[in-house]
Amino acid sequence: MTTIIAVEVVDVRFPTSLTQDGSDAMNKDGDYSAAYVILHTTDPALSGYGFTFTIGRGNDICAMAAEQRAMPLIGRDVDDVVSDLGGIYRELSSDSQLRWLGPEKGVEHLAMAAVMNAAWDLAARRAGKPLWQLLADMPTDDLVDVMDLRYLTDVLTRDEAAQMLEELRPTRAERLETLRRDGYPCYTTSAGWLGYSDEKLRRLLQEAVDQGYTDVKLKVGANIDDDVRRLAIAREVIGEDANLMIDANQVWDVGQAIDWLQKLAPFRPRWIEEPTSPDDVLGHATIRAAMAPMGVATGEHGMNRVLFKQLFQANAIDYCQLDAARLASINEILPVYLMAKKFGVPVCPHAGGVGLCELVQHLSIFDYLAVSGTLENRVTEFVDHLHEHFVDPCIVRNGAYVLPSRPGYSAEIYRASLDEYSYPDGSYWSGSRVEGTASVVG
Amino acid sequence: MTTIIAVEVVDVRFPTSLTQDGSDAMNKDGDYSAAYVILHTTDPALSGYGFTFTIGRGNDICAMAAEQRAMPLIGRDVDDVVSDLGGIYRELSSDSQLRWLGPEKGVEHLAMAAVMNAAWDLAARRAGKPLWQLLADMPTDDLVDVMDLRYLTDVLTRDEAAQMLEELRPTRAERLETLRRDGYPCYTTSAGWLGYSDEKLRRLLQEAVDQGYTDVKLKVGANIDDDVRRLAIAREVIGEDANLMIDANQVWDVGQAIDWLQKLAPFRPRWIEEPTSPDDVLGHATIRAAMAPMGVATGEHGMNRVLFKQLFQANAIDYCQLDAARLASINEILPVYLMAKKFGVPVCPHAGGVGLCELVQHLSIFDYLAVSGTLENRVTEFVDHLHEHFVDPCIVRNGAYVLPSRPGYSAEIYRASLDEYSYPDGSYWSGSRVEGTASVVG
Repeated sequence: MTTIIAVEVVDVRFPTSLTQDGSDAMNKDGDYSAAYVILHTTDPALSGYGFTFTIGRGNDICAMAAEQRAMPLIGRDVDDVVSDLGGIYRELSSDSQLRWLGPEKGVEHLAMAAVMNAAWDLAARRAGKPLWQLLADMPTDDLVDVMDLRYLTDVLTRDEAAQMLEELRPTRAERLETLRRDGYPCYTTSAGWLGYSDEKLRRLLQEAVDQGYTDVKLKVGANIDDDVRRLAIAREVIGEDANLMIDANQVWDVGQAIDWLQKLAPFRPRWIEEPTSPDDVLGHATIRAAMAPMGVATGEHGMNRVLFKQLFQANAIDYCQLDAARLASINEILPVYLMAKKFGVPVCPHAGGVGLCELVQHLSIFDYLAVSGTLENRVTEFVDHLHEHFVDPCIVRNGAYVLPSRPGYSAEIYRASLDEYSYPDGSYWSGSRVEGTASVVG
Repeated sequence: MTTIIAVEVVDVRFPTSLTQDGSDAMNKDGDYSAAYVILHTTDPALSGYGFTFTIGRGNDICAMAAEQRAMPLIGRDVDDVVSDLGGIYRELSSDSQLRWLGPEKGVEHLAMAAVMNAAWDLAARRAGKPLWQLLADMPTDDLVDVMDLRYLTDVLTRDEAAQMLEELRPTRAERLETLRRDGYPCYTTSAGWLGYSDEKLRRLLQEAVDQGYTDVKLKVGANIDDDVRRLAIAREVIGEDANLMIDANQVWDVGQAIDWLQKLAPFRPRWIEEPTSPDDVLGHATIRAAMAPMGVATGEHGMNRVLFKQLFQANAIDYCQLDAARLASINEILPVYLMAKKFGVPVCPHAGGVGLCELVQHLSIFDYLAVSGTLENRVTEFVDHLHEHFVDPCIVRNGAYVLPSRPGYSAEIYRASLDEYSYPDGSYWSGSRVEGTASVVG
């Protein structure tokens, strides 16, 4: 029997604020970070790796919450855990004292995501499959069993979920062929951070075009004149046929968003991302109605499945940008994909950060194979940084994610990176070459 | 000059699970707790006290978050702080790295509530006034300045807020007279916890009637037969004319709520409280439309002002039950009161827990004096436990809160209670008479 013997949680922070990588109108100086969870087992060759993503301060709080949340897993038989990830999810999330701190939002939910991501990684490794394939190989009933449908049954029942999954089974093989040949299409945000100069913006956009990208995204929302100038540069470099997306990172009130966007509409953005508070379902619906045909996108701060249910019900968004480290892992993400299908909203996951690209490639692949069955209007974010810290980094070719083939959820970070960037005692932060500050319990 | 010299945060937990005080269908074994903040100043006779409320595990995480959030206050001139609580609020809440962990929800927002509650208590003490009076004495422009209107301007502008406050100024004096004479009406939840036997329920309901209460609340949602039997007992004891409220603490999905409530409708509940997920604005609207004339109430888990804005916009609730330790103190609570007035929804604050009654009496009094100007359909929760730990406990007579008269927000807990119930090293939890585990930074 292989048993989970310890939970190790590491507060890892990368000093991205130094280069303004990731800078936008709301987040000017993020240090991209992960509250990183390792489930150690009695088999030295088998661990589960998972994380949630933050941008610096408070990552220690998420790490502490993840450690508490993962405690009940210590001593469990690995095969019991991986064969009932629905039961494990329900057990961990039903702690009513911890539930009070959300419910299902903020630090506690980020921590739940980190822990369950590690559990899913463990399951995929135990099965010797990349996560997308583990999901694809699961019988429909098992997939439905792992889903958290609580508070969703007014729009998605077990039977509906099962039926949607069954419908696409017969045609999966041909889509897998397509993915093996072409990969899953992505767009790049690497060019458009707000802190970059016009010259750097122009050079990076040209590089993106040269690399085969047909979709690029720029940050907006700090200054209207700057936005107009930068969007003009972007259209000049990428041309009129390419897709240009813009992202305001929640800086506007509803009325202000509409005023500002009317000035940017001539550049024909495919979508405006996060125009206002991520909690404001009705506000997004108002902006969408005012700005059509410009699309409205949100989701990276979408706190839980109940918020997404309402975004769909209220016709508030054209693109669903769920986040793999903010929703509570596969258990909560699958029902969001199924609701999106039911309401005809394409899912274009948020990525970037630390390791989010590594995670979401699995989600997009499974979506195409088993849920949506189409690539139309779908494009997954790609940001080209911090991949060098991952043991199984995502690979992008010709503007598309290459199918991952190694077992797991691609979530493992090199031990050397942990030793260097663990906070505050890693060698980078302490200024000396010392061991990292992993907290191990078990 | 008086300066803030230290932030002390105490993790206080009371063993309420032993008696099932506070038990409901979702929360069967809460240990009522507070992440308790003290802002110490150079004047030994002047401190600010505040807290957020939790039900046990994870209170340490809130305490850690509160400590981090309060850090920037150390070294500040008390008069600078208390004369610009809008600026302080905006400064503390604008930390973009911490914002990522919400935004404005969960642990980080609870911590923000604790810190700002302490800042408002400090302001009221510095002014030598109870908080309700400090607010009542503030000029309209100052009141509007402290409000967080971000993301609300599509329904509430600065000018509207100012106008609403001005309108009721001329008639305040007569309402103050009413309050001094009669107090502010409340209802009791003390009788109806789910873990109580039928005999205890009957006895406590009779005691409530004898004490002058005309409104009582019962927990429901665990078992339909139990609910029917308990509601029958309640009607028998309180009679047909008294108000009976019921509270499901989020246990139902939307369709299930409607099915279940149709069986309880014959007992004519005034409201059903928390029928489903607190995040489900549209779900509450659906339940409300199906169950009228039964009222729908929610808010104790209402995460922030943006959620309340939507509850009002969607006509989702008949009663707004905001929570003084979950919303980020007066800065966020005032705009919710003003939106409630605009949409004609009475605010009946959530209370109970640890010290929530002490806080909300100030809010209800200010609402009557300065915002709503009416007591119609208003009744504030009262739960009779844990008041003995407070230096300035609320007083209830004839089913009404007596106007607090001592300076502050009534939030101070006796040092002896901290020493006994601080977790895990207080004398109660460690089983020995040792000093508490206050964490003092400064």
